[in-house]
Amino acid sequence: MATTAQSVADVCAQAKRASRHLARLDTATKNAALGRVAAALEQRADEILYANARDVEAGEETGLDAGLLDRLELTEARLAGIASDVRSIAALPDPVGETIGGHRLENGLDVRRVRVPLGVVAVVYEARPNVTVDCSALCLKSGNAIVLRGSSIAAHSNSVLADVVSSAALSAGVPEGAISIVSGGDRDELRQIATQDGVVDLVIPRGGEGLKAALKEHATVPVIYAAGGNAHVFVDSSADLDDAVRIAVNAKVQRPSTCNAAETLLVHADIAGEFLPPVLRALRESRVELRVDARARSLAGELDGSVRDATEADWATEYHALILAVKVVDSVGEAIEHVNRFGSGHSEAIVTGSVDSARAFTTDVDAAAVYVNASTRFTDGGVFGMGAEIGNSTQKLHARGPIGLRELTTYKFVVEGSGQVRE
Amino acid sequence: MATTAQSVADVCAQAKRASRHLARLDTATKNAALGRVAAALEQRADEILYANARDVEAGEETGLDAGLLDRLELTEARLAGIASDVRSIAALPDPVGETIGGHRLENGLDVRRVRVPLGVVAVVYEARPNVTVDCSALCLKSGNAIVLRGSSIAAHSNSVLADVVSSAALSAGVPEGAISIVSGGDRDELRQIATQDGVVDLVIPRGGEGLKAALKEHATVPVIYAAGGNAHVFVDSSADLDDAVRIAVNAKVQRPSTCNAAETLLVHADIAGEFLPPVLRALRESRVELRVDARARSLAGELDGSVRDATEADWATEYHALILAVKVVDSVGEAIEHVNRFGSGHSEAIVTGSVDSARAFTTDVDAAAVYVNASTRFTDGGVFGMGAEIGNSTQKLHARGPIGLRELTTYKFVVEGSGQVRE
Repeated sequence: MATTAQSVADVCAQAKRASRHLARLDTATKNAALGRVAAALEQRADEILYANARDVEAGEETGLDAGLLDRLELTEARLAGIASDVRSIAALPDPVGETIGGHRLENGLDVRRVRVPLGVVAVVYEARPNVTVDCSALCLKSGNAIVLRGSSIAAHSNSVLADVVSSAALSAGVPEGAISIVSGGDRDELRQIATQDGVVDLVIPRGGEGLKAALKEHATVPVIYAAGGNAHVFVDSSADLDDAVRIAVNAKVQRPSTCNAAETLLVHADIAGEFLPPVLRALRESRVELRVDARARSLAGELDGSVRDATEADWATEYHALILAVKVVDSVGEAIEHVNRFGSGHSEAIVTGSVDSARAFTTDVDAAAVYVNASTRFTDGGVFGMGAEIGNSTQKLHARGPIGLRELTTYKFVVEGSGQVRE
Repeated sequence: MATTAQSVADVCAQAKRASRHLARLDTATKNAALGRVAAALEQRADEILYANARDVEAGEETGLDAGLLDRLELTEARLAGIASDVRSIAALPDPVGETIGGHRLENGLDVRRVRVPLGVVAVVYEARPNVTVDCSALCLKSGNAIVLRGSSIAAHSNSVLADVVSSAALSAGVPEGAISIVSGGDRDELRQIATQDGVVDLVIPRGGEGLKAALKEHATVPVIYAAGGNAHVFVDSSADLDDAVRIAVNAKVQRPSTCNAAETLLVHADIAGEFLPPVLRALRESRVELRVDARARSLAGELDGSVRDATEADWATEYHALILAVKVVDSVGEAIEHVNRFGSGHSEAIVTGSVDSARAFTTDVDAAAVYVNASTRFTDGGVFGMGAEIGNSTQKLHARGPIGLRELTTYKFVVEGSGQVRE
């Protein structure tokens, strides 16, 4: 494992060297290494939990909020879950070496596109120590070296976890430098990682807007940004209203802190008078705080005093909490326009009985995942059959939606001939 | 067409609006528009050539070098070639709407990955006015709006060409704002284009290092960078030496200004004494200036006085001219190491009779295109069967190698259900 005595440039250069070896490691070796990582997490649980307790204690002393402390804390059960995730990653198909396509040219050259690892992936993240293990496992399986840069809040946890993972991997034949961590204490590290042109092939930020803004300012290497999720459920005039209630409630309340949870409910004017009373009642019963526009209020029937008027700012707000904005629209076109204007391009749903509306929505809404008659909550690499994910992209280049093993690869053209030259 | 009176932000915003319509234009309409563009280039040839003559004249007055003037100049024949390229793009398959994959989940949800346009592509480029047309045609066919920012050197040519293309496209039902050009006179335009977050989906620079450095400094939107090409031909100990001579000469001299032309010849020590005399003679006969390392000199037989000693700097130099560096190495491993250290990840070739060497080279060399027993000169979208290309990427994210129509798209997940919610 890289120690903090090394410079960031040294850590990245060592990762680059390791990446050459990693690219040709066979699947059996990578899977065996992941098996040892999972076992080591269990064997060294006491050590990990002790280090984590130090971070949690320090966090409590400095007054971290309860949500952050919860994300920071490891328990025996959580650690077992992390080890189990590593074993699941070992069980996924290896993306490296897949022939994506190929053909023979007129001159006899055989051109194939072959999937290869990216090289060095840097993951910069905030409090969650499980990211240290999950991302290391995904990069190892996809043949990439990883440089981790966690938060100083989790420094003790991350340092032990990175040592557990990298030493277990090393013992199974993974090259030195394949899994490295930089201290996380130095603000300048982020800038250094993000400017290792030709060495770091990709930076994946897993954290808030501050982290992304810092990368936008400094990064000269490729970055995949994931916006948060300002997701919508639009209930069309032809919707099955029972389905619509279940979908709206599920999209909001099943796990409100996630990026694919709904933040705004759009309702077609034609059914608003019929639909709003039952859906708002069901949402209130699930303790959802409501922000409604004037038309919704006029059609909603009786509302208790807690229901506030929505303002323009509500359409743009990602609550990630039990709060939902509600708006009445006159057409599927108006709904699409609203979604494209305020949405973050993550997950958007229409509930409809009309094939025309469904087709308009899926074609015209500009988002990573577009749903017809289903909750937005399904956007997830595991659910989509891609295995574990390292993040969820809302940008359009390279990977859109879940970033799984395959999205951690690139391709090269392998061209085989028998002496061909160009005329 | 956007006029220079509009701000860059306005031009980009209009392109974004146009991109929503473009995304659902059917293939027949797009092809008809491309047909009209090709016809308009022919019908308005006089106007285009007159504008171009003004640029060329101004360029001569300000003392542009001959190479730049040549790239700037349009002739009737070149214009006919450009129109013919537009018709070829119309004949290519439309990438939009392709279902990349899909399956039904256990809960009955149908998940499909569907190819969609990126949205707004900005192309920033230097003197060549043909880029204005080629890139507009590729973006139109792939359903993207394009914002062009050419060089002030070609301002008259580009202004007329953009008007010809956009008005012809408009007449066929392509939305206003789909093809726009900004003046090219204002240095700040580049920064403005490159910071249109959420509006410009991709910037493609087609130009030199200065342009790329400016983008690296300013860009907050995604950019695909194309490094130049420092390509190598490695002749292994088991190579067919006649093939090796033909490949080395072709890779260097067939078109030395291109990125896939070879800049260094690596020769295995075991056959250097036999191979170097004929290959260096053939290269000298093609007027190639040679820079040889000490071992190559000692094994090359008689060399004329023009042959210089290679220095460390030669390994890193992209001559893009009739100059070739020559080095003797002891193994395929040493060749791979040299290529990975000095190459730019564009096109790399091995000439060998050994399957082990071929496998090592294709696996371990980190480049967009890796050749066995063929010239590096084939790396090209057209040659690879991808149709025309908007550029050639040496970075690993999204597109590696030729950037064709398919590489100008992204995908979305379309998920269809019957009321599914997440448990």
